[in-house]
Amino acid sequence: LNNLIDYFISQKSVLLEYWRYIFPILVALYVFISFYDKRRYGGKKQLNQQQVEKNASNKKLVNDEAADGDENEDFEDDELQPSLENKLYIPFTGAKITLDPDQKIAAEKFYKIVNDRRSVRKYSSRKIDVEILEKCIHAAATSPSGAHTEPWTFCLISDPDIKLQVREIIENEEFINYTQRMAKQWVTDLKPLKTDHVKEYLTEAPYLILIFKQTYGFKPDGQKKQHYYNEISTSIATGILLCALQSAGLSSLVTTPLNCGPALRILLDRPPHEKLLVLLPVGYPSEDCSIPDLQRKPIDEILVKY
Amino acid sequence: LNNLIDYFISQKSVLLEYWRYIFPILVALYVFISFYDKRRYGGKKQLNQQQVEKNASNKKLVNDEAADGDENEDFEDDELQPSLENKLYIPFTGAKITLDPDQKIAAEKFYKIVNDRRSVRKYSSRKIDVEILEKCIHAAATSPSGAHTEPWTFCLISDPDIKLQVREIIENEEFINYTQRMAKQWVTDLKPLKTDHVKEYLTEAPYLILIFKQTYGFKPDGQKKQHYYNEISTSIATGILLCALQSAGLSSLVTTPLNCGPALRILLDRPPHEKLLVLLPVGYPSEDCSIPDLQRKPIDEILVKY
Repeated sequence: LNNLIDYFISQKSVLLEYWRYIFPILVALYVFISFYDKRRYGGKKQLNQQQVEKNASNKKLVNDEAADGDENEDFEDDELQPSLENKLYIPFTGAKITLDPDQKIAAEKFYKIVNDRRSVRKYSSRKIDVEILEKCIHAAATSPSGAHTEPWTFCLISDPDIKLQVREIIENEEFINYTQRMAKQWVTDLKPLKTDHVKEYLTEAPYLILIFKQTYGFKPDGQKKQHYYNEISTSIATGILLCALQSAGLSSLVTTPLNCGPALRILLDRPPHEKLLVLLPVGYPSEDCSIPDLQRKPIDEILVKY
Repeated sequence: LNNLIDYFISQKSVLLEYWRYIFPILVALYVFISFYDKRRYGGKKQLNQQQVEKNASNKKLVNDEAADGDENEDFEDDELQPSLENKLYIPFTGAKITLDPDQKIAAEKFYKIVNDRRSVRKYSSRKIDVEILEKCIHAAATSPSGAHTEPWTFCLISDPDIKLQVREIIENEEFINYTQRMAKQWVTDLKPLKTDHVKEYLTEAPYLILIFKQTYGFKPDGQKKQHYYNEISTSIATGILLCALQSAGLSSLVTTPLNCGPALRILLDRPPHEKLLVLLPVGYPSEDCSIPDLQRKPIDEILVKY
């Protein structure tokens, strides 16, 4: 190796000559990369590194899959309250309220209700009693969550001005998406579906529900409290919300507006630790509403029995 | 700057002297960092970088939040089938099957059903008709998903041997978690809840449901098809499953076994593009089942109206 270096140095005298310029550039580059890395990946990098070490030292299955486990803390459930207070335990006998005394009929009834759900993009202006929506959101918030942190905030918008501002933020971003960001193939693929950057449903639907995940919370003493699994928990709550809306005869559409999270958070005056997960217009289909004739996968493609 | 460099070089002649050793080390360090980065963050880094550029060039809100948008593609919904075939459109008039003709009563009924749900850790051995579980899973699979990719697989286990193997995999990992990986504070916090690495429910519950997210799928020609938002989609499906089980009078517990995904995937012979999202024991509470007397947040802590 030393021979190689000697050879390299003797050949490239020009490198030594300009070294005074090259060196600070290299240093600056290194500093920039380190800084960039830290800023971008901060905690995540540390987590992955820890995980790699863990996996290596425990001689457990180490393969590519280990790397994608950003959420490897135990999700656990309502029970897992990480607090020092001794919780009172009460007996529990299971579900008291079901859809039918016959469990098979109950499961069938529930399946029929949710199987009737389709995503709706064109809404009528028909009003909805706000109490119905409140009750549906209350139902969503019964979701289990990592360590019972309940890491969600539901923003319910009916004010036409605010709906318009939401629409402007999203349409501006979507216009850039469709014209600059999205691959040509993707835009071409979408053409038959008449999907473009114009999102009329954002002002047509009587209500918008914006669901924020809380990436962390606060203990009574003001200290930060990590919200493990806040995205999975809030998504499960979203699933419960969809069932509630459907049970009450309301239609919706699950969307994740590309790049709009921060602007919408500021518009709605939510704190920085809340991040937009999904946005749902809620209402009734317009008279001319139509949907693509899609089929769902048959049960044997999604269920494996052991 | 040049003066500074001159000064630097004259002072630190030792640096020039040992340059032949320092230079290759710097190069190796740089190569290592680049390589390490690519391996760890591959696509993600690219995405974030694009995003930074986008945000900068569009003079849009650029702040720390932009960095956490791993899933910045449009989630969209059932409708968004990215395929060139022209889908047939059919009229849609909204929900036909609801819980009650009166929407307020329907929403209230649904709320009461799901509010009755509590996570159960102790199960009786009482059997469940498999058809009920199949129907509940079928209901979960009506979930919307990014571009209608339906990126989920439900593994339903009743075989006692396989349940025992699942338990062994998880208990071995959990023992390491509790004794080595988890912070002392966390383990201390859990003591009053009597939560430890022994997971009897994994063999006591008549059924286990393991829900896998499919990180990608395959087109008819065998090409890989990206599954955008597979985690959010599969979590929403999990939320629907919880409602279905509850409606049918069954109890469950949402868990995310720490570090066990790959071993469980191999045990159940699932392909590498499927990653374990959650594991749910399903059944009836045992006679001595008890739950902590937890309260849920009041509605005004989770709902903001505009």
